[in-house]
Amino acid sequence: MTEVVTFGEVMLRLTPSGSDLLVQANSFDAHFGGSEYNVAAGLVSLRVPAKCVTRLPDNSIGHRALASMRESGVGTYDDILTSEGRMGIYYLEPGSSPRPNRVVYDRAGASIAVTDSESYNWMEYLDGAVWFHVSGITPALGQMPYRATADAIEAASEMDIPISFDINYRTKLWSVEDASMNLAPLLEKCKVIVSTEEDLDRVFGLKGGSPKQLAEMAIEHFKCETVAVTLRNTQSVKRNEWGGCATGEGGYVESKMYDVEVVDRIGAGDSFTAGLIAGLLDNDLQYAVDLAAAFSALKQTIPGDVCRASRAQTEELMKSGGPGRIQR
Amino acid sequence: MTEVVTFGEVMLRLTPSGSDLLVQANSFDAHFGGSEYNVAAGLVSLRVPAKCVTRLPDNSIGHRALASMRESGVGTYDDILTSEGRMGIYYLEPGSSPRPNRVVYDRAGASIAVTDSESYNWMEYLDGAVWFHVSGITPALGQMPYRATADAIEAASEMDIPISFDINYRTKLWSVEDASMNLAPLLEKCKVIVSTEEDLDRVFGLKGGSPKQLAEMAIEHFKCETVAVTLRNTQSVKRNEWGGCATGEGGYVESKMYDVEVVDRIGAGDSFTAGLIAGLLDNDLQYAVDLAAAFSALKQTIPGDVCRASRAQTEELMKSGGPGRIQR
Amino acid sequence: MTEVVTFGEVMLRLTPSGSDLLVQANSFDAHFGGSEYNVAAGLVSLRVPAKCVTRLPDNSIGHRALASMRESGVGTYDDILTSEGRMGIYYLEPGSSPRPNRVVYDRAGASIAVTDSESYNWMEYLDGAVWFHVSGITPALGQMPYRATADAIEAASEMDIPISFDINYRTKLWSVEDASMNLAPLLEKCKVIVSTEEDLDRVFGLKGGSPKQLAEMAIEHFKCETVAVTLRNTQSVKRNEWGGCATGEGGYVESKMYDVEVVDRIGAGDSFTAGLIAGLLDNDLQYAVDLAAAFSALKQTIPGDVCRASRAQTEELMKSGGPGRIQR
Amino acid sequence: MTEVVTFGEVMLRLTPSGSDLLVQANSFDAHFGGSEYNVAAGLVSLRVPAKCVTRLPDNSIGHRALASMRESGVGTYDDILTSEGRMGIYYLEPGSSPRPNRVVYDRAGASIAVTDSESYNWMEYLDGAVWFHVSGITPALGQMPYRATADAIEAASEMDIPISFDINYRTKLWSVEDASMNLAPLLEKCKVIVSTEEDLDRVFGLKGGSPKQLAEMAIEHFKCETVAVTLRNTQSVKRNEWGGCATGEGGYVESKMYDVEVVDRIGAGDSFTAGLIAGLLDNDLQYAVDLAAAFSALKQTIPGDVCRASRAQTEELMKSGGPGRIQR
Amino acid sequence: MTEVVTFGEVMLRLTPSGSDLLVQANSFDAHFGGSEYNVAAGLVSLRVPAKCVTRLPDNSIGHRALASMRESGVGTYDDILTSEGRMGIYYLEPGSSPRPNRVVYDRAGASIAVTDSESYNWMEYLDGAVWFHVSGITPALGQMPYRATADAIEAASEMDIPISFDINYRTKLWSVEDASMNLAPLLEKCKVIVSTEEDLDRVFGLKGGSPKQLAEMAIEHFKCETVAVTLRNTQSVKRNEWGGCATGEGGYVESKMYDVEVVDRIGAGDSFTAGLIAGLLDNDLQYAVDLAAAFSALKQTIPGDVCRASRAQTEELMKSGGPGRIQR
Amino acid sequence: MTEVVTFGEVMLRLTPSGSDLLVQANSFDAHFGGSEYNVAAGLVSLRVPAKCVTRLPDNSIGHRALASMRESGVGTYDDILTSEGRMGIYYLEPGSSPRPNRVVYDRAGASIAVTDSESYNWMEYLDGAVWFHVSGITPALGQMPYRATADAIEAASEMDIPISFDINYRTKLWSVEDASMNLAPLLEKCKVIVSTEEDLDRVFGLKGGSPKQLAEMAIEHFKCETVAVTLRNTQSVKRNEWGGCATGEGGYVESKMYDVEVVDRIGAGDSFTAGLIAGLLDNDLQYAVDLAAAFSALKQTIPGDVCRASRAQTEELMKSGGPGRIQR
Repeated sequence: MTEVVTFGEVMLRLTPSGSDLLVQANSFDAHFGGSEYNVAAGLVSLRVPAKCVTRLPDNSIGHRALASMRESGVGTYDDILTSEGRMGIYYLEPGSSPRPNRVVYDRAGASIAVTDSESYNWMEYLDGAVWFHVSGITPALGQMPYRATADAIEAASEMDIPISFDINYRTKLWSVEDASMNLAPLLEKCKVIVSTEEDLDRVFGLKGGSPKQLAEMAIEHFKCETVAVTLRNTQSVKRNEWGGCATGEGGYVESKMYDVEVVDRIGAGDSFTAGLIAGLLDNDLQYAVDLAAAFSALKQTIPGDVCRASRAQTEELMKSGGPGRIQR
Repeated sequence: MTEVVTFGEVMLRLTPSGSDLLVQANSFDAHFGGSEYNVAAGLVSLRVPAKCVTRLPDNSIGHRALASMRESGVGTYDDILTSEGRMGIYYLEPGSSPRPNRVVYDRAGASIAVTDSESYNWMEYLDGAVWFHVSGITPALGQMPYRATADAIEAASEMDIPISFDINYRTKLWSVEDASMNLAPLLEKCKVIVSTEEDLDRVFGLKGGSPKQLAEMAIEHFKCETVAVTLRNTQSVKRNEWGGCATGEGGYVESKMYDVEVVDRIGAGDSFTAGLIAGLLDNDLQYAVDLAAAFSALKQTIPGDVCRASRAQTEELMKSGGPGRIQR
Repeated sequence: MTEVVTFGEVMLRLTPSGSDLLVQANSFDAHFGGSEYNVAAGLVSLRVPAKCVTRLPDNSIGHRALASMRESGVGTYDDILTSEGRMGIYYLEPGSSPRPNRVVYDRAGASIAVTDSESYNWMEYLDGAVWFHVSGITPALGQMPYRATADAIEAASEMDIPISFDINYRTKLWSVEDASMNLAPLLEKCKVIVSTEEDLDRVFGLKGGSPKQLAEMAIEHFKCETVAVTLRNTQSVKRNEWGGCATGEGGYVESKMYDVEVVDRIGAGDSFTAGLIAGLLDNDLQYAVDLAAAFSALKQTIPGDVCRASRAQTEELMKSGGPGRIQR
Repeated sequence: MTEVVTFGEVMLRLTPSGSDLLVQANSFDAHFGGSEYNVAAGLVSLRVPAKCVTRLPDNSIGHRALASMRESGVGTYDDILTSEGRMGIYYLEPGSSPRPNRVVYDRAGASIAVTDSESYNWMEYLDGAVWFHVSGITPALGQMPYRATADAIEAASEMDIPISFDINYRTKLWSVEDASMNLAPLLEKCKVIVSTEEDLDRVFGLKGGSPKQLAEMAIEHFKCETVAVTLRNTQSVKRNEWGGCATGEGGYVESKMYDVEVVDRIGAGDSFTAGLIAGLLDNDLQYAVDLAAAFSALKQTIPGDVCRASRAQTEELMKSGGPGRIQR
Repeated sequence: MTEVVTFGEVMLRLTPSGSDLLVQANSFDAHFGGSEYNVAAGLVSLRVPAKCVTRLPDNSIGHRALASMRESGVGTYDDILTSEGRMGIYYLEPGSSPRPNRVVYDRAGASIAVTDSESYNWMEYLDGAVWFHVSGITPALGQMPYRATADAIEAASEMDIPISFDINYRTKLWSVEDASMNLAPLLEKCKVIVSTEEDLDRVFGLKGGSPKQLAEMAIEHFKCETVAVTLRNTQSVKRNEWGGCATGEGGYVESKMYDVEVVDRIGAGDSFTAGLIAGLLDNDLQYAVDLAAAFSALKQTIPGDVCRASRAQTEELMKSGGPGRIQR
Repeated sequence: MTEVVTFGEVMLRLTPSGSDLLVQANSFDAHFGGSEYNVAAGLVSLRVPAKCVTRLPDNSIGHRALASMRESGVGTYDDILTSEGRMGIYYLEPGSSPRPNRVVYDRAGASIAVTDSESYNWMEYLDGAVWFHVSGITPALGQMPYRATADAIEAASEMDIPISFDINYRTKLWSVEDASMNLAPLLEKCKVIVSTEEDLDRVFGLKGGSPKQLAEMAIEHFKCETVAVTLRNTQSVKRNEWGGCATGEGGYVESKMYDVEVVDRIGAGDSFTAGLIAGLLDNDLQYAVDLAAAFSALKQTIPGDVCRASRAQTEELMKSGGPGRIQR
């Protein structure tokens, strides 16, 4: 059975109920998310079995996170709970034009950040896997997660498991210089690299006149098989034009652009990656980018970090291209 | 006193609280609705007394539905509660572009579907009524409701009560062939037929180059006095251009188109019909279509299946044509 | 790995938000439950792997139920989704003295009730299982579920898997006569029978002067290895004295009685059974009854049908016997 | 058809959501209530048709109140809406021992308080009525409501309609002296007087050694046919022992005492009166007091001012006397 | 320390939870607001200390209002609580195109409206203040508040404290004639006048061909130092183009126009005034209008009457001009 | 003006909405609390001005905490916001017998724990203060807070400001040995010591046969002027008998015991201390203990860590001793 393995932090996300600012909030909606976990959960929604390697504190909050992972159908390993560290948190303040979405992180000391890289048993985790995915966030969480990421990539590489990597640069975690220097050795072994126009520019100085040019510059830069880039044309905070493109063996492909009425923008990139991997497992780059774009457009209409849309629903959108009548 | 009588199912509608998908929902908002009941309730909002013939299970859920009908001011008959059948339910998943609104029906075995047509006393129900309305949903619910609909139309016809009929084709209930064949004898006795461009096409093969042409083709096809059609220009799931037109004795009339920020699209067609009937009772087709269009535009900004806007509020919109300052 | 398999319906439970009566409800909290599923979920909370054989409609509501089962950690089989039938529902109106808790069922036509007994592959489901559990509700759901229950018991019996059976008599589903007649052949092959004083009396006419007498009469009647009975001394709707007893090879054992401030009484009996099975798997009847009583006392303080208390938390209560200071 | 008419103010009640104090509240649950309206609504729950004479402001809040009255099934008259005055409000802070329930009134200037007594057409309102009820609150609202109450009593008296009067003394509205002086002429024409031990003492100086003595002193004092008194033995804010007694032609009768887990204490006395009237219409004082006591015990377990329990549910409680198992 | 003093009513605002109309509402969100209080609270958000002179009833609702004022950081005076009058209320029904926002006032008899003007000690309140602000609402609340406003302006004028005045015409409170006649003597002593195109036209008959012309006509009319006008180009009820302009010593200045996705339109004008005053205290008209426009654009994305955006956040918007990526 | 200064951490408290366990929670209610802050807020409720020295992170969550402190009326100092550390959190799972209340702490790295003791300016903070209060939690938070507590006590002592100290032992923060050793030097300079029977026993080995004996042993042990002890007789998780006692110059005094229906047990001890200090400032030990007991009994009926009951309300309870009728 096809199984994708991802590696990264799962955080508790707290969003003010209603439309309140953080400074006004009297209650919070709870979701659980994290870039690589979101990819795994998106894959499961698309009916690709997936597991996520992570660490959760062995208390009620960690157990709550675990229940949420189970609900999304993501597989976990027996050593997921640990007595070290805490549940990382991020507070999300949803925006409304001209006020942008805002995230306040409280992730220092998270279990995954304080877990020794030796504690991960990659041979076991990757046994039977057909794909491994990680993003630039995990190695940025600290020396131990960096080491663990390197080990994971090493192991996957040795086991001939294709690796995808989402650049996912986070200013709060490290500088552009640190990121570009430290990511370089990790990226060498990756088959697929996913990123945004913004990150390719600020981290790697790659700036194309067109998406196509950019993707081609990137593939030359990274010397990987496939580069995929999300395409965003932000109309307003609650309105987004959204699609994606990729360059691979078969050349350059681009998806439709979707006009999105945004409900929750978080996790859009991660569900793009999930769609891409699901499509690449079928060995069709055009289909992969189309699935990725449609799936991640749907994500933005769904509360939480994770895309719960089904493969059927996503393929229906790929055909229709947009909103229709009520589906009865 | 003017009194309109309608006949149809009242369902419990369950909508996920917040913006959750059905697959994520932890709680549901409860509303009660059904096409013909919605028409009756809309008429009451417009200060036209109306009653609805239906059947509800004699348990707490049926009693809850009855309380909701009373709250909307719709009159009921003493035999509304029955020991047979259950409360039909539909689950509504509100959409956001490019994800459409979606409805999951759970209406099999509803009280109205399992009630013998003999149990309805149409002479009593229609006594004193000045209008009778039903839609294509009721006869599609099963043989007994079909029979009851035919009986009701027969009775109204004999009592010289004008009849309106909303085509309201539902794929889940019957095929296009069954619908067109079975509706034909019912429509013969109807004075007013309401429909959409989509239904006229797929059920009756009527396709006009313009709304006017379509309405005229329809009136020729149905040989009734008046045909009214809602006009929809869907911008996105949460944005709708909306209006209506009709052809009758005085020729063809069209309303303004309204630019609607959609809160709840369900029941838009039903409130159009309510406005139309309210206007036709005043014998003015232009006013009827204008009232219908404005009232159903307002409906789409109001949670629930029923339009709670008042006649004054609706007429004010007919004059102003759109949003203004805060009304203090 | 130890694995318990149970077989039964999973329903959507709708409870009015706040303290409203059903007749007042404007929104509902959603939970998923069903006697045998509750047992499986309770076992997982106690760290005994468990799976539940059931059928869910292949629509968004069925998918929601499946996500909820996954969240509780209960294993499922690939053929759980079906195109036949609907999601059974029950409405719960929580009581307050002197007003009792009240349940309105809407389960007719549920997927499990309309699934052919041939569709179940018991050899596969029970492969590797160490215990099988079912209650008197499943065979009462109709001829097909009755047949399937008989098949399951037959298969388990042949595979030498111990079987437990909870009488769980439901007036709405069948008469006392039908129940006692039809349960008899099923009970013959069961090793453990769980019931209440009330059911033993009304279904089997067993009435003891003391719990001990009753348990002994029952074991003689059923000719099984172990009979367990919950002991309830209802102080008020929101206050319950609760415990249990059993007779088995080692004689008669009784638990402490717990003074419970009830939050949600539903599923108390099912979590008693879960605790009992968990304890019996450790071959200690006294421990089994103690665990069962403490676990089901905790259940009554937890919203939903399922007991989410952990084994550690339950054993702590078994030691302390009652409420203490805030646990910091 | 039996029809009871009552006369009094309907107020918007605002209760903090959750258990917050008023000083902490961020949102309020909305209910509508008022002593005489509550009696009418209770009667409808007991299947006795009832109407309520009142005045509501002709704005959205008044319309909301009207919809709530319709939902409860209480009949209204065409002149209920007025351009004068405002919607009276009361804020309810539910207590928890040792903190009592607390009410903050904001009822000055309410429509009913500023409506001229000439505006009421008692002959029309009382046409066909078999009972008239009012409480001591209405005449305390101001000179015009006092005059209107006197007119109503006069009219009912002339039309030979039995009149019941609930003393309902409110310190915030008038002094004990004003109350006793002004109520005297009104009470002369009343057939049934309802009150509490506390009010009989503080307003009329009636203090009996036992409920029986008190009721007999009261009947001598008021020279009416029947006096009924609620009996309360407050265990704590959330726990109440509750019953009632009455003296009439057939002598003294007393109900069971119910042990109540209080959800919402407001309107307990009003639902007692509703039960009493419903029973007296059947000419059975013992049944009347039993119905009154059971119905008002149930009221205290139901959110809002109005008792939504049915006659069947109430009679079931009269038989069982208390909480039983879950009613499935 | 810089301190601005404002004078006006604080009201309880009740908004239906969710998107319900008032006529449907089952619960209300509570906020506290009032034009001049909103200005003070906006100033505090911008780090300008501010106090508000008002009167609140000395009951739990008044105490709730006081706690809300404290939460926003607005200073109050010891004599704020009074035994006279009630808490004024306004009900807000948020609109959605083509249905406008609607406000129902219930402010008659509010504490501030029934407080004698003698009870205000302006010398004390204004001691140390560097600015005084009031709007046309306060003097419209009745003779006593009118007198108090005149006294306050007189006192501020004598103490050489600059005065700003927002015209804020309210149809429900007085006629255009009364407003223009009674405002004239108050406006004479004001340094800064804020208004809208609509009010300048209907109250003072000032209508310019362009914002610039209008501002210049106004400054000539009022003979004050500065006139500022908000510029609104309502796209729909939930979409607003918004900015402002002013004419002062340095000539005419105009802000950017912001494209706003409206969450809560109430208080937009008040936060414009807050921004303007904050900027004028820095003696820079261009900055003042820019700050005012950006701050009030942000207000419209924030629930409640008060703008909780910070100065930093506002200045960031002034630079960026609009929505960007998620701020992590 | 009397002003009490306290020193300690303010945490964000997250409580599952409804009655959910942490492991089930989908949303959280947010409150802010911390032992010494709770004392300050309680004092303000009792009309004793109070300030709290603490540190909050300079982000939206810190600003939210600050707004909450302002709302409760507690004064703060200009240096309260810091760029170091994070907002400490605790998760509260409210219990129901036999399941106890449970707290999960996530306070490591909180701003107050990582702030250098040099950063506190005690001379300024204590200027004008008449009382200083701290508890055993603050020094247990780390070396820097320990040092800061010692500095504060030193400064208060030098300024002749009476000091109260609540033992408040927390197992998660330090061992009994560390606590007793490190608290000793701090306690030497304290005038008033507050504790529980449990803490006096486990930390100091003080165990009296009666409250009186215990208080006298404690005063001998600590050699302070006054020792106060809360008296708890836990009936169940939601039912508490509660009172307090003290020994001081005037001998031993004891309060009434209150029978409490618990809404929120957190902060009971802190509000006892607030009442005690408020009473001691009036130099009446009996009054102080009575106020403390009544105020803290009320606390347990109020959501959140802070007692919002007023002095009048508390004194009323001291007189009446318990629940009465609805207060209208």
